Amino acid sequence: MHPLKRLMNPSSIAIFGASNNPMKMGSIQLANILETGFAGEVYPIHRSEETVMGIPAYKSIAEVGKQVDLVQLVLPTEVVPEMLEQCGQAGVRSAIVISGGFKEVPGDVGIERERQLKEVAAEYGIRFLGPNCVGIMNGQRSLNSTTIVDPPMGGGIAFASQSGAYTAMINPYLRAQGIRMCQTISVGNEADLDLADCLDYLRDEDEIKAVGLYVETIRRPREFIAAARETVRKKPVVAIYVGGTEAGSRSSLSHTGAISGPDELYDGLFRQAGVLRAADMDHMLDLLWILSMQPLPEGRRMAVITNSGGPGSSLAYHLEKVGMEAPAFSAALRAKLDAVTGALTYTGNPIDLTFETNIFIFKQLLELVFESGEVDGAFIYGIFGAPDFMVNLKKRLPELQAMESEWDTGYQSFLRELAEVSRMHAKPLVVMSFLGAGSVSIQSLIDSQVPVYPSASRSARAMRSLVDYAAIVGDLGDRREGL
Amino acid sequence: MHPLKRLMNPSSIAIFGASNNPMKMGSIQLANILETGFAGEVYPIHRSEETVMGIPAYKSIAEVGKQVDLVQLVLPTEVVPEMLEQCGQAGVRSAIVISGGFKEVPGDVGIERERQLKEVAAEYGIRFLGPNCVGIMNGQRSLNSTTIVDPPMGGGIAFASQSGAYTAMINPYLRAQGIRMCQTISVGNEADLDLADCLDYLRDEDEIKAVGLYVETIRRPREFIAAARETVRKKPVVAIYVGGTEAGSRSSLSHTGAISGPDELYDGLFRQAGVLRAADMDHMLDLLWILSMQPLPEGRRMAVITNSGGPGSSLAYHLEKVGMEAPAFSAALRAKLDAVTGALTYTGNPIDLTFETNIFIFKQLLELVFESGEVDGAFIYGIFGAPDFMVNLKKRLPELQAMESEWDTGYQSFLRELAEVSRMHAKPLVVMSFLGAGSVSIQSLIDSQVPVYPSASRSARAMRSLVDYAAIVGDLGDRREGL
Repeated sequence: MHPLKRLMNPSSIAIFGASNNPMKMGSIQLANILETGFAGEVYPIHRSEETVMGIPAYKSIAEVGKQVDLVQLVLPTEVVPEMLEQCGQAGVRSAIVISGGFKEVPGDVGIERERQLKEVAAEYGIRFLGPNCVGIMNGQRSLNSTTIVDPPMGGGIAFASQSGAYTAMINPYLRAQGIRMCQTISVGNEADLDLADCLDYLRDEDEIKAVGLYVETIRRPREFIAAARETVRKKPVVAIYVGGTEAGSRSSLSHTGAISGPDELYDGLFRQAGVLRAADMDHMLDLLWILSMQPLPEGRRMAVITNSGGPGSSLAYHLEKVGMEAPAFSAALRAKLDAVTGALTYTGNPIDLTFETNIFIFKQLLELVFESGEVDGAFIYGIFGAPDFMVNLKKRLPELQAMESEWDTGYQSFLRELAEVSRMHAKPLVVMSFLGAGSVSIQSLIDSQVPVYPSASRSARAMRSLVDYAAIVGDLGDRREGL
Repeated sequence: MHPLKRLMNPSSIAIFGASNNPMKMGSIQLANILETGFAGEVYPIHRSEETVMGIPAYKSIAEVGKQVDLVQLVLPTEVVPEMLEQCGQAGVRSAIVISGGFKEVPGDVGIERERQLKEVAAEYGIRFLGPNCVGIMNGQRSLNSTTIVDPPMGGGIAFASQSGAYTAMINPYLRAQGIRMCQTISVGNEADLDLADCLDYLRDEDEIKAVGLYVETIRRPREFIAAARETVRKKPVVAIYVGGTEAGSRSSLSHTGAISGPDELYDGLFRQAGVLRAADMDHMLDLLWILSMQPLPEGRRMAVITNSGGPGSSLAYHLEKVGMEAPAFSAALRAKLDAVTGALTYTGNPIDLTFETNIFIFKQLLELVFESGEVDGAFIYGIFGAPDFMVNLKKRLPELQAMESEWDTGYQSFLRELAEVSRMHAKPLVVMSFLGAGSVSIQSLIDSQVPVYPSASRSARAMRSLVDYAAIVGDLGDRREGL
C-alpha cells in the first residue's frame, strides 16, 4: 500500500498539541476533526488535561494502548523529534508534523532539527508529511485535520500543496464558486513525502479526476517528471509555480526552505512532465474544476449561445484570444436554428437571443449545434432563474408568490436537461453567469457537472484547458478512461 | 446642463410598456423603480389598465398633465417612434428607449426605424439613450430603471456600456466581491447619446472617482479621444473592447449594430486617449475598484506582509510579473521589524509571519515600512477574523461563545486602523483574502476604502493599474485632485 494511501485513510488518529486553549492551532484542528464527521477513533495526547474538548485525553501515545494509524503533531519545535520517537515505539507508521521551526527558519538550527526528524522517522519506518504543514482533508473519510471549518468536500479534485494556506484557507472562495475538493495534502517542507509521492498516490485514486499542485520548488525533478507523466495518462495535472522571481525566491526560501529556479526552467519541466501550468490559485481552480467534470473536445470549434449580447461578444472574443474558434454556422444549420428562434435572432454563431425570448429553447439550440457536427463544444450565457428577477415584482404583484416554486422546478429540470444534452453528445459545455453558487439554478448546473464561471475570459481559458489536456493525452499516445 | 445630467437626475419618470403582466421586461423595470427608493413621481402609461402595480396608470403621456422629466419606452418596435413623438409634444426632453429591433437586427428595416427615431427626437429636442438598452442606475437618486433587483449602489464607480447585461446582470457578482456602483448607463445602439457623451458628463460628477466603459465600437473616435483625455485629467477611465476578433465582430454587429475594428487599432486609440485597457469585465471591475478608492503610489516598490507563506510568495511573484518590485529591505529597517516580530520571522520582504503570530502587529509593521520610505505601497495577506476559525471550537468549548463579540470588535477596529495607516502615509494598500464580502472583517476593510481580492495575481494587477494611471496623469502634465 502506498504510504499516502495509509496516511490519508486512517481508522484512528492521535493529536499532540490540542488542548482546551482555543488560541492554539492544535485545538482548532482537533475541533475540526471531531466536528467534520470522521468515523474513526480520535485520541488527544496531553501532558496534564484529563479531557480535551470533552473527550478523554491521554498522557502519552503509549497510554492509548491501541493501534494508532496516524498522529498529528502540533508541538513546540524542540519536542517534536522526541514525541515522534515515542510514536515510533508505539507502532505508529504515519505522521503529520504541523510544527514549524525547521529548515524554513534562518540559520543552521532549523536544518539540524529537520535532519534529526528524518533520522527518527527512518529508524521507525514512519512516513510523514511536513514539517511546517497544516494537515489533510479527505472527503471520502469526512476527515479534516486542517484549521479550516466546513471545507466543501466531494467532487473529483485533489490538491497537493507546498503552501498550507492554499489547502486550508481557500475554502470560502471554493464555497462561493461551488467547487468541491475531494482530497487536499499539505506537504510543508517535504522532509519525507513530497509532491512526486502525492502524484504516485493520487494516480490510482479512482474518485480523483484532476490533480492540482502548488509548487515553490521541485526537490526531485527526475522522480517528479516520471510520476507526473504516469499520472497524466490517467488524469490531468495542473500546477502553479511562484518561485521564479527575485522576491519570490526569497519568499520561498523563508517559507518552506525551497530553493527555487527560474520560471522558464519550470515551464520546461512542466511541459516535459505533461503538466498544465496555471498562473495562480484562482486560475488553477478554474481549470481543475472543468477538467474534473467535463469530457474532452475533439477540436477547437465552439458554439456560443447567449441571451445577452455583451457576454456573447465577450465569449466570442475571448475564445478566439485563447486559440479556439467560433466558426460561422453553415446555411443548413442556420435554417434549422432560425426555425426555432424566429427570423429576428442572429444565429450565425454566437446565437444571440434576447432577454424576452423563452430561455427553454436553449436546449433545442444546443441539440441542433451538437448534432450538426460543426462544433466540438459550447458556451452558454443565460439569465437563469426567474426568481432572481422577481423579488420586487412579487412585492407589487402578490399573486406571483404562488408561481415561484413552479418556476424554480421548471428551471432546475431545464438546466439538468441542458447538461444531459452535453453528456449525450460527449461534448464539453461551459456556462457563464454572474450568479454565484448561492443561486439554485447555478447549483443545479454544478450538480450536473457543468462548471459556471463569472467572466468570458475565465470561461474561455477553462475550456481551452480541455483542449490542452486532450493534446497532452494524444501526445502520450493514450487516452484516459471516461469521466 | 449636460443632457445626461438631466437624464440621470429626473424628478419624474413615465414608463411605457409596464403592465400587470410579470413576464414583461417593462413590468420588472417598473417594480424596480418603485422598490429601490426613488423619491420622484412615477407614471405608468398603459392603454387599458387603470392601475399598474398598484399605482395609477395613464392612457397617454398627455393625460399625465404634469411635467415629465424622463420617459422609458419598453414597447413593440413599430410604435416607438409614434410614442416618442407624443412625448415630445408633451414637453419631454429626456428618453430611454429600451426596445430593440432597430439597427442591430438583420436587414434594412431596422436601420430605417432607427433613422425615424432620431428624426423624431431631433424635431422635439429630445436627447435619448438607446434604442436596445436596459436602463440606468443612479445611486445618488436611488434610481434603478434596469431589470436587476437590489443593485449595490454607492461607491465611486460609474460604468457606461454598450452591453446592457453588463450594467444590469453583473450585480450578484458585485455583491459577492463588495463592489458598489454609483452610476451605470446602458447606451445600447447609441442612436443619440454615446460613450463620448457619457465621458463628458461623468467628468464633472464629483462623486465619481473612476469610470469604466464596455466598448464594441467607437462611433466618433475624434470626439471620444478628446472627451477621454479631458476626463483622465480628473479621474481614471478603464475600458474593455471585445470587437477585435472575427466572431467578436459578427457578434457586435448583431448586438448593437457596431462595426468593430482590429484589436491593435483600439489599443492605440485607448493609449492616445489615456484610457487603461482591461481584458474583461472582472478585470475592469478589479481596476475600477482600487482606482476609485486608493491613492496613487509614487513608484513601483511594494512591501508584502503576510501570515501565510504561499500567498506571500505568490504576491511577491505576481507583483514582479506585472512590473513592480518587492525590494529587499535595508538592514536598518529589518532591525526595526525584527524588534516587533521576533528573530524567527523572515522580515526581508515579504514579511512572513506565521499563523499563531498576533496579527495585530501588522499595524506596527505597516507603519514601519511606510515610514522607512523604502516602499511606495503595500500588500497584506492575513487571516482576518477569528470568528471564521472558531465555529467548531465553539461547539466543543461553549464558554467561547461569550468571547465572540469581543473578537469581532477587536478585529474591526484593527482593520480600520490598518486602513488609516495607509491613508496617513498616502500610500496605497491592497488586501488579499479568500473571505468574500460576506465576512464582517472584509466588509470593514472595504468600508475603509481598502479593496480586497481573492488572488495574488488579481491583487498585483489592481495595484499595477494605480502605477499606470499615475504615469498617465504625469504624461498629461497634471494631477487629479485628491480622492
